Amino acid sequence: MAAELSPHLLTEKHRPTLDRALDAIRSRAYWSPHPEHPKAYGEGGSPGSLGAADGKAAFDAVLNTRIDLGQPGTDGWTGGEVSPYGPELGVEYPHADPDVLIPAMRAGMPAWRDAGPETRALVCLEMLARISARTHEFGHAVMHTSGQAFLMAFQAGGPHAQDRGLEAVAYAYEEQIRAPRTADWSKPQGKRDPIELHKTFTAAGRGISLLIGCNTFPTWNGYPGLFASLATGNPVLVKPHPRAVLPLALTVQLAREVLTEAGFDPNLVALAAERPGEGIAKSLAIRPEIKIIDYTGSTAFGDWLEANALQAQVYTEKAGVNTIVVDSTDDYRGMLSNLAFSLSLYSGQMCTTPQNLLIPRTGITTDIGEKTYEDVVGDIAAAVTGLLGDDARANALLGALVNPEVRARLEKAAQLGEVALTSREVANPDFPEAVVRTPLIVKLDGTKPDDESPYLSECFGPVSFAVSVDSTADAVELLRRTIRDKGAMTVGAYTTSPEVEGALVDVCLDESAQLSLNLTSGVYVNQTAAFSDFHGSGGNPAANAALCDGAFVSNRFRTLEVRRQR
Amino acid sequence: MAAELSPHLLTEKHRPTLDRALDAIRSRAYWSPHPEHPKAYGEGGSPGSLGAADGKAAFDAVLNTRIDLGQPGTDGWTGGEVSPYGPELGVEYPHADPDVLIPAMRAGMPAWRDAGPETRALVCLEMLARISARTHEFGHAVMHTSGQAFLMAFQAGGPHAQDRGLEAVAYAYEEQIRAPRTADWSKPQGKRDPIELHKTFTAAGRGISLLIGCNTFPTWNGYPGLFASLATGNPVLVKPHPRAVLPLALTVQLAREVLTEAGFDPNLVALAAERPGEGIAKSLAIRPEIKIIDYTGSTAFGDWLEANALQAQVYTEKAGVNTIVVDSTDDYRGMLSNLAFSLSLYSGQMCTTPQNLLIPRTGITTDIGEKTYEDVVGDIAAAVTGLLGDDARANALLGALVNPEVRARLEKAAQLGEVALTSREVANPDFPEAVVRTPLIVKLDGTKPDDESPYLSECFGPVSFAVSVDSTADAVELLRRTIRDKGAMTVGAYTTSPEVEGALVDVCLDESAQLSLNLTSGVYVNQTAAFSDFHGSGGNPAANAALCDGAFVSNRFRTLEVRRQR
Repeated sequence: MAAELSPHLLTEKHRPTLDRALDAIRSRAYWSPHPEHPKAYGEGGSPGSLGAADGKAAFDAVLNTRIDLGQPGTDGWTGGEVSPYGPELGVEYPHADPDVLIPAMRAGMPAWRDAGPETRALVCLEMLARISARTHEFGHAVMHTSGQAFLMAFQAGGPHAQDRGLEAVAYAYEEQIRAPRTADWSKPQGKRDPIELHKTFTAAGRGISLLIGCNTFPTWNGYPGLFASLATGNPVLVKPHPRAVLPLALTVQLAREVLTEAGFDPNLVALAAERPGEGIAKSLAIRPEIKIIDYTGSTAFGDWLEANALQAQVYTEKAGVNTIVVDSTDDYRGMLSNLAFSLSLYSGQMCTTPQNLLIPRTGITTDIGEKTYEDVVGDIAAAVTGLLGDDARANALLGALVNPEVRARLEKAAQLGEVALTSREVANPDFPEAVVRTPLIVKLDGTKPDDESPYLSECFGPVSFAVSVDSTADAVELLRRTIRDKGAMTVGAYTTSPEVEGALVDVCLDESAQLSLNLTSGVYVNQTAAFSDFHGSGGNPAANAALCDGAFVSNRFRTLEVRRQR
Repeated sequence: MAAELSPHLLTEKHRPTLDRALDAIRSRAYWSPHPEHPKAYGEGGSPGSLGAADGKAAFDAVLNTRIDLGQPGTDGWTGGEVSPYGPELGVEYPHADPDVLIPAMRAGMPAWRDAGPETRALVCLEMLARISARTHEFGHAVMHTSGQAFLMAFQAGGPHAQDRGLEAVAYAYEEQIRAPRTADWSKPQGKRDPIELHKTFTAAGRGISLLIGCNTFPTWNGYPGLFASLATGNPVLVKPHPRAVLPLALTVQLAREVLTEAGFDPNLVALAAERPGEGIAKSLAIRPEIKIIDYTGSTAFGDWLEANALQAQVYTEKAGVNTIVVDSTDDYRGMLSNLAFSLSLYSGQMCTTPQNLLIPRTGITTDIGEKTYEDVVGDIAAAVTGLLGDDARANALLGALVNPEVRARLEKAAQLGEVALTSREVANPDFPEAVVRTPLIVKLDGTKPDDESPYLSECFGPVSFAVSVDSTADAVELLRRTIRDKGAMTVGAYTTSPEVEGALVDVCLDESAQLSLNLTSGVYVNQTAAFSDFHGSGGNPAANAALCDGAFVSNRFRTLEVRRQR
């Protein structure tokens, strides 16, 4: 093949990055090749990297256009995204006939398989590098589909998403080379000649991988599955959330360009945009060609996929109820400001945002004296109010509500109990149509949890519950029940007591949840760092997979052996 | 704890073996710590190792006794195994009330988790070492439950099963240490101090693991799941096939002894023997405490488990249709004798035994000239007849039919087409009641395969089909269809043509099957070697898991992180 991206060039460009990523997932020390600061892009960034102005211009240029991916089976065009900030995006995407597109996607599988794990990984790294170079453009695309404020959209939708994609590639690569490419096997036979076999081992993808994207984090939640499947030899069909197509359509476009330049079939990555109300995820998910599904979204549909798409490996991230246990702290102000930020970021519309703050009715011990339950709740509310007092800062932190359902839920939640902090409407001078709301905090009694307790359901959005409990021991037990029955992407706790810490660790190990202890400065319970932190555990009802571990990649391919007598 | 088996002692005894196993699964070169030759046991074997006479005596001593495992919730006794060789075993096993036993099994989980991956692996290796020392005893137990001839029962049920168990432990250990125990994470903040977190990572089991054993290979098919789950921190409930309880009951007994001596709760391994007709697998499999299931058996029940035990990770080995493509050979006599052995071993009652021999109607090229379809079929039949002409040798190879269903299927199969080789009744002078039969070969027309074609169903037992096809190309296409629709644990082929070989390799890579090419001497398509060969692929309908790879172990535990601000 006369590929522009030769294996040699790919190795030179990306093998060092792959090696660093492999080191990072083993050491789990801090590392990222994707800068977080917007100024790191453009002049002085990677070749072709777009700076702030160019990135914005690129985004503006794609608005009101048709993105023609050149996919087989395109039977029309669809679109209709409206930014949570107000504007219609006006972008049209190809609508696919799956009976044509899906068989065409399989055609490139053998060559992609035969390329081997290293070339596949390096091609994926080239895709990620091109995405990285356009991080500013992706930032705007994520902002105007998710409602995240620009800086968050830039970071979470850009470098952090790219990190998670790269992490998945590293895991996929490492998993596939656990068996050697060849082995010579010689079994002694006493005085007779040994029996000798020559063996080859090939990592082969399973079939088409379906990515069902989400509205809030189209790239961050999409890239791990996309790149894990592609790196393990599977074509990937990307079915974005109808409200968040653009970031994934741009991703598919870049991926197809890179595949072509590297001499592979571009149809190894394709887009399945849907018409309004079409609901194609369900019919795609149970097609026999679909062997892998990655999904982020509601528990109901996630459970449906797990129960019905039995022909596929299904990786789901669903709803959960995240808890913070407040027992004691030696940095009360640090705790308050850390929690205020966690509750406010992206208006609580993260699967990792804390929902239930479990606070003993008897109060807590802090570095500045005993604090009653009322003190703690009031001080958290005040910290949020202080953090978001300035409208510009509030807009930069909160972003916009992603859809009307979140707004409706927020309004209803104020009826659930005594309101400790009222949700405030914030005006966005740049986007008057954006619905911007500060977090609501509602006081609830956690003494006798039952199935009707509002704090035992996910209330997705800027809503938290200050749940009073009789004691820290009761908080720990409520935490256990919450994780076991409802799942949790994150658990946080504040305590200076080794006994309480031990009990919290035990609960999280028993019930399979990731625990953050005593965060008071620049790390927040809702943020995880690729290469070091696991996102979710895969062991409680909130998700059946973690990002990223061996289990996330090992079933996306099979190792096939050919043995020959020598 | 005042454990007799201290961590220090375990490390001294078993860490070198674990390291060798880890090397072996990476290089996939030949290795086994468990000798195949019966004379390697006893005097000069490992400490306490039983020789042939002592092993037989130990087996005889357990007959007509009650094996009291001291399990909680024992509410009676059950048994009733009858050897395929005739004798009643007369062994009684505890019958468990799962509502008592299962909660008791969970009690030991935290300590088992806290012991860490290395100690868990070394405890498993101690269990395997004690099983190994009693290989002669296990050989008789496997013989008199599976119907395998003694030498095969000794080898497949002893060292080969132990190898597969050890292999699973090695994979489990390696998987669990992919994340370090701790990590210090330091994220630069420009001119400000870096953000620093201290992180711990703990591998934690998921819950109770249920092993649903099979009749034909109770230890070989049972040990991988048992040891993979135990080594990853899960208690294991062993539900043996009602006709093959003894080998697994002895295993549970030894495992409980070792756990006790190492200071752990013996209830981490327990037996669930059932009363005749009780069918407890179904009710156990959907209990919420059961988080992992390993199953070997019928497709119907395997599919039921996959569709219904949604609370668990389910690993199944089901039925398949194994194919040999005969295209050409440069060692015709070697091919014939190799195939004759493969068809005869354990009367074809292996999930890996070839069923369909696809032979071009136009004949094949060999080192001794062209051979017609009739020649090839006749010569294979003659080779089987020659191999099994001597009754003593026939008994030593064939063993006994494991149950009346196999006999009925064999008798019915003779009606399916023209018989190329009649199944012969062989008398077993030592066990007159044993039902011993030589393989039946039936000629079938493979020109137009449809859903009714008998060669497109598994016919488990000593039955093979000599399927005539129009060409090798048709054979390759029928192979593809067979793997895709019916699954295959093994595929074999004979060809001297690089083009045909390439086509066969492509089909097996496309459809996910393990391929053996041109086996003519001491390796058979139905045998795989632990540490080197994968058993099944996990990618076709015959099994959803392979023995053994990362995917077989990675979802049996979760890696849980605790992060603390420094």
